[in-house]
Amino acid sequence: MRYELYYWPSIQGRGEFVRLALEAAGADYVDVARRGGAGRNAVGKLIYGARIRTPQFAPPVLKAGKIVVSHAANILQFLGPRHGLAPKAEAGRLWTHSLQLTITDFVKEIHDTHHPISSNLYYDDQKKEAKAYTREFLKSRAPKYLGYFEDVLRRNGGRHLVGRSLTYPDLSLFQIVTGLRYAFPRTMKKLEKDIPLSVKLRDAVEQRPRIAAYLASPRRIAFNEDGIFRHYPELER
Amino acid sequence: MRYELYYWPSIQGRGEFVRLALEAAGADYVDVARRGGAGRNAVGKLIYGARIRTPQFAPPVLKAGKIVVSHAANILQFLGPRHGLAPKAEAGRLWTHSLQLTITDFVKEIHDTHHPISSNLYYDDQKKEAKAYTREFLKSRAPKYLGYFEDVLRRNGGRHLVGRSLTYPDLSLFQIVTGLRYAFPRTMKKLEKDIPLSVKLRDAVEQRPRIAAYLASPRRIAFNEDGIFRHYPELER
Repeated sequence: MRYELYYWPSIQGRGEFVRLALEAAGADYVDVARRGGAGRNAVGKLIYGARIRTPQFAPPVLKAGKIVVSHAANILQFLGPRHGLAPKAEAGRLWTHSLQLTITDFVKEIHDTHHPISSNLYYDDQKKEAKAYTREFLKSRAPKYLGYFEDVLRRNGGRHLVGRSLTYPDLSLFQIVTGLRYAFPRTMKKLEKDIPLSVKLRDAVEQRPRIAAYLASPRRIAFNEDGIFRHYPELER
Repeated sequence: MRYELYYWPSIQGRGEFVRLALEAAGADYVDVARRGGAGRNAVGKLIYGARIRTPQFAPPVLKAGKIVVSHAANILQFLGPRHGLAPKAEAGRLWTHSLQLTITDFVKEIHDTHHPISSNLYYDDQKKEAKAYTREFLKSRAPKYLGYFEDVLRRNGGRHLVGRSLTYPDLSLFQIVTGLRYAFPRTMKKLEKDIPLSVKLRDAVEQRPRIAAYLASPRRIAFNEDGIFRHYPELER
């Protein structure tokens, strides 16, 4: 069965956490909106279409045959045990999902560094507030979240967040560290000194053959200033 | 087996979504921190304790024997199928969880109406930004979320969000509408005209015998200005 991923075609965004899992699993999938034209409309149709019984609030949405799942973390808990990217037993699945939901919260706070007042307003119209938000974010929130995942890694032996092999939160932590480096390079230089295990995990994920192939392919969209991780140098000053 | 809920003892907060499910299910549980003294320390211990293999990022945390789950939405997906508050089949469980994760996002935005810049700063130190955030929130975000759940109710026959009986997102929608009424009474008077099914569901939940008994009991903490839903009249002006 071929999975269908419905997500915006021009950003990594929240869809990237799903793309990384599909790629790491070597799963057969199509990134529907990236096929262009009709594909792009398909995202809206699946979400709002008049005939849909269960309208999703927002992409990413994954279709797997008759199953339709939205929210990146929910999609990942669906994919995880099917592709060896999460434990199969209940306690382990719930723990893995808890980690991912903490990633979700972190991602929202990262997003809000450039849009603290409203997603409906331009960045330029909330730049002053973005600076105030980012100052607090880089001073306390980012270290708190990063320190948490570092702690989880340490308590689990250092190489993986869950168990003894790759799981989907490992992939997400790769994306978080990589994205924060893009958005806040000066601050990350300092913060990374305190999270050596996370940096090592990031590097290990990057070097996995399937992930390396993905990152080098046109399927990987570059970071840009429409996504979650945005490089606005003035925010770091 | 008696469930143990670990959450702050003086606010409804995110723990309330779990309390409502436990109460609606008539489940045997103890709200650990509300026992006082040692109970309050237990929250911190469970989360940060040096001997814990899987430290949770934040409460609420539910212990069910050897299973430990954090994040309200994750706890609810664990409890749901066990207590008839969610479908048992996979597609239904995933859909129910998608709805709850949208509730989670909504709750975060509600929280940010009084803390748009940082949770580490006092409300008084971000009042101006809180007004700007709340203006956009009440104008576009609250109507968008509420309209979404109203749409889900309508497409599902009008009485429940999922299937033909009560599920945990129904309980959460009760809490959302009730909390928004407390925080933003003037705006909700207007917004409620557009969400008749949601208001009817809220009333039906309130009148369920177990929920009515809970709301009248000392177990239900009153809304207050330390929680998520805060009544700061100046924000609505």
